[in-house]
Amino acid sequence: MTFLAELQALLGAEHVLTGDDTDSYTLDWRGRYRGRALAVARPGSVEAVAAVVRLCGQHQVPLVPQGGNTGLCGGATPDGEGRALVLSLGRLNRVRGIDTENDTITVEAGCILQAVQQAAQDAGRLFPLSLAAEGSCTIGGNLATNAGGTQVLRYGNTRDLTLGLEVVTADGEIWHGLRGLRKDNTGYDLRDVYIGSEGTLGIITAATLKLFPLPVARCTALLAVPSVEDGVQLLARARNGFGAALTGFELMAGNCLQAVVRLFPQQRLPFSGESAQSPWFALLELSDSESEAHARERFEEVLGAAIEAGLATDAAIAENVAQTRALWHLRESIPLAEAELGKAVKHDVSLPISRIADFVRTTNAALQARFPGVGHVIFGHLGDGNLHYNVTPAPGQAEAALLALQPQVYGIVHDSVHAHGGSISAEHGVGQLKVDELPRYKDPVELALMRRIKRALDPAGIMNPGKVVRT
Amino acid sequence: MTFLAELQALLGAEHVLTGDDTDSYTLDWRGRYRGRALAVARPGSVEAVAAVVRLCGQHQVPLVPQGGNTGLCGGATPDGEGRALVLSLGRLNRVRGIDTENDTITVEAGCILQAVQQAAQDAGRLFPLSLAAEGSCTIGGNLATNAGGTQVLRYGNTRDLTLGLEVVTADGEIWHGLRGLRKDNTGYDLRDVYIGSEGTLGIITAATLKLFPLPVARCTALLAVPSVEDGVQLLARARNGFGAALTGFELMAGNCLQAVVRLFPQQRLPFSGESAQSPWFALLELSDSESEAHARERFEEVLGAAIEAGLATDAAIAENVAQTRALWHLRESIPLAEAELGKAVKHDVSLPISRIADFVRTTNAALQARFPGVGHVIFGHLGDGNLHYNVTPAPGQAEAALLALQPQVYGIVHDSVHAHGGSISAEHGVGQLKVDELPRYKDPVELALMRRIKRALDPAGIMNPGKVVRT
Repeated sequence: MTFLAELQALLGAEHVLTGDDTDSYTLDWRGRYRGRALAVARPGSVEAVAAVVRLCGQHQVPLVPQGGNTGLCGGATPDGEGRALVLSLGRLNRVRGIDTENDTITVEAGCILQAVQQAAQDAGRLFPLSLAAEGSCTIGGNLATNAGGTQVLRYGNTRDLTLGLEVVTADGEIWHGLRGLRKDNTGYDLRDVYIGSEGTLGIITAATLKLFPLPVARCTALLAVPSVEDGVQLLARARNGFGAALTGFELMAGNCLQAVVRLFPQQRLPFSGESAQSPWFALLELSDSESEAHARERFEEVLGAAIEAGLATDAAIAENVAQTRALWHLRESIPLAEAELGKAVKHDVSLPISRIADFVRTTNAALQARFPGVGHVIFGHLGDGNLHYNVTPAPGQAEAALLALQPQVYGIVHDSVHAHGGSISAEHGVGQLKVDELPRYKDPVELALMRRIKRALDPAGIMNPGKVVRT
Repeated sequence: MTFLAELQALLGAEHVLTGDDTDSYTLDWRGRYRGRALAVARPGSVEAVAAVVRLCGQHQVPLVPQGGNTGLCGGATPDGEGRALVLSLGRLNRVRGIDTENDTITVEAGCILQAVQQAAQDAGRLFPLSLAAEGSCTIGGNLATNAGGTQVLRYGNTRDLTLGLEVVTADGEIWHGLRGLRKDNTGYDLRDVYIGSEGTLGIITAATLKLFPLPVARCTALLAVPSVEDGVQLLARARNGFGAALTGFELMAGNCLQAVVRLFPQQRLPFSGESAQSPWFALLELSDSESEAHARERFEEVLGAAIEAGLATDAAIAENVAQTRALWHLRESIPLAEAELGKAVKHDVSLPISRIADFVRTTNAALQARFPGVGHVIFGHLGDGNLHYNVTPAPGQAEAALLALQPQVYGIVHDSVHAHGGSISAEHGVGQLKVDELPRYKDPVELALMRRIKRALDPAGIMNPGKVVRT
């Protein structure tokens, strides 16, 4: 039998897509990567995933695992050769169990992130991973890329939220590692080897994740901040004043929010006059385990002192859930506003928080020196040292002209990130976008170790080839 | 030149110990493991560590890295053959830097844990790793074993406190991975491969660790608790009521504390009458970022409700620092009291919190059925699902008689742990103590993956052979 016939026999013909039916799986959602696939397989169980992997091994067919196809680095898109099989985890979407006493939930890789959040909430618990694509990304994709988002400051990245995994290895064996334990020192940490490996070492089919108490109250505020330095000082005060109750700290350049309210007139800044023209804004969120009144009181005390110290010039505290949503909506609309303004050269970088102000100043200057007039659209999760540092065309510059300069822009920004002790991929991963940038910045010893891990766990080289690391 | 002559030329003769000078390095502190060593090398820099590893590679000399020699599983003790070199990290004990704005500290492996805590505190920050051996264990050993301790509930294990590593690989190369980043998705998570690998893959020579704000106030209480089930319910209430401010939750069987006050008459239980005879006790700690008064008020509110609900029969809240210390001292004296009572068969296990009560009941019963009259000394970090489950001789049974039964006792306890979805090593690691227990309980696929990692990163097999996993 041919590979495809065997695959159909294994899964049922209806779960093997070919030809035009593969189109939505071979184009990433932003339309930046178009690949080709031999077929798309949609197995419905972990055993079926393992059988598909074994079949691919026998036929030397490369595999590209895919979740919600919402990645930003092309990690889930096959190359153009048309030899690869896309393995969609979408049908593995059961919540296998929830244990409120142990504060854990066990879910299959194809569960939509929002469904995981909802299942937790229905049981009176919080699953805190939260990011823009949560309505369509899958937890499997979040695990494969170690997704971050807006609550990392308090709850950590996806890695930190994971206790156990079920994995189909590159040999098509099943590792039953769904442990719900907060301490387990019985050998090498394979869990964290697979998390963030973007499907290049094996396929995560299920995970046991941590749950938390639902906060009793949330308090959100937007602050007008004079400078990045002030933002960093404000963060320090908020960390000291709120401790672990500080669950969000976003910094946004003024032009980001000004673009949002210009392009989406139904949205408004909660400021007028000079404050509305602030060069920077910070969005803070406090989660309280006590009461609405207590959260509000703490917020006013700590933020009041920060304003007195000159770290912020104005503050708007949300008075109700609608206002809270409106403040977060401003933040979340920045990428949409950016898209309206035209394609940008984007960077997802992280830095030691103590180096961020210098990074922004020197990188802006270096870009202006080389490409006068380009725009800087800078926002991100300051609490995690994570900036989305994006560059937009100069007045009169065509979008395509800037995009053609992407390698040079990358070079300036990433060299500066490296010089400041930062990372060229904070939360989006490597995929195919940065696989050839990595060797410029990664310690060669580290890269060599990564290649050893790749060869050890995927000796045939069939797992998502061309992503993360070239062997 | 011979190996030893080369080693002396490399480090200086004064940093190469031989003969009787090796004695304190070849016996573990509890006196359970006595090995022999070719020599003890005490390199003073990461470059010297790398050179020693390369030399060992050339001569095929096995290496046993050692920190403070406070491990509980013999992981830092060489075997009896006398072929191995003990590599002591003690001279690498500098604090390389502290960045209060980024909330990170970079320290060398040989730093004593207490010195790291102190350096953080001197800078007005908290390094929260805390455990009984903190006055003599090194941070390198903590990293090698992914140490836990009393604040894991809030701050996580050593793994969770680590951002970056410097590692000498098994080939004697240096991986410069001292990143101070809270988000970094540029490839495989090598950091977590080395953390917890007990020196079997390479040698951690330095680390960049997370710091936190110092709590403004701490509140501690001892509660008399009727049963393990009530303890679990009390934990749930404390988590919901205090959120991340809950920084400690220890459960102790009544006989543990009763032995402490009997053996150390200067210590007293803060209870009299029936409460002092409680079958279980819980020690809770709340860390507040607001004020002493607020901490106290919250404590009284949540604990009051718990007592009303019958989850505790009595509570003693520490009124001052001296009383706080006295409560923790009771908890910390349990291992000393145990030692006074004679050698026990000890287990360091973790379980899903929802299974703990059933585990204690069924395991106690299974042991009594097989070995009537043996004692149960049970205490641990309930908030992490981690129990120290120890078995003491029956009345009239000789210590040696019980120790001779250790394999059978292990079998009963570990089989029960496994049946309850737990781990046979929660926070102490594997070392040589559990290396041959592991294959009984570990998924064979997982064990095979561990062996692949070992072969990939230490192909010559010279790194701490016979520990963690046999190849």
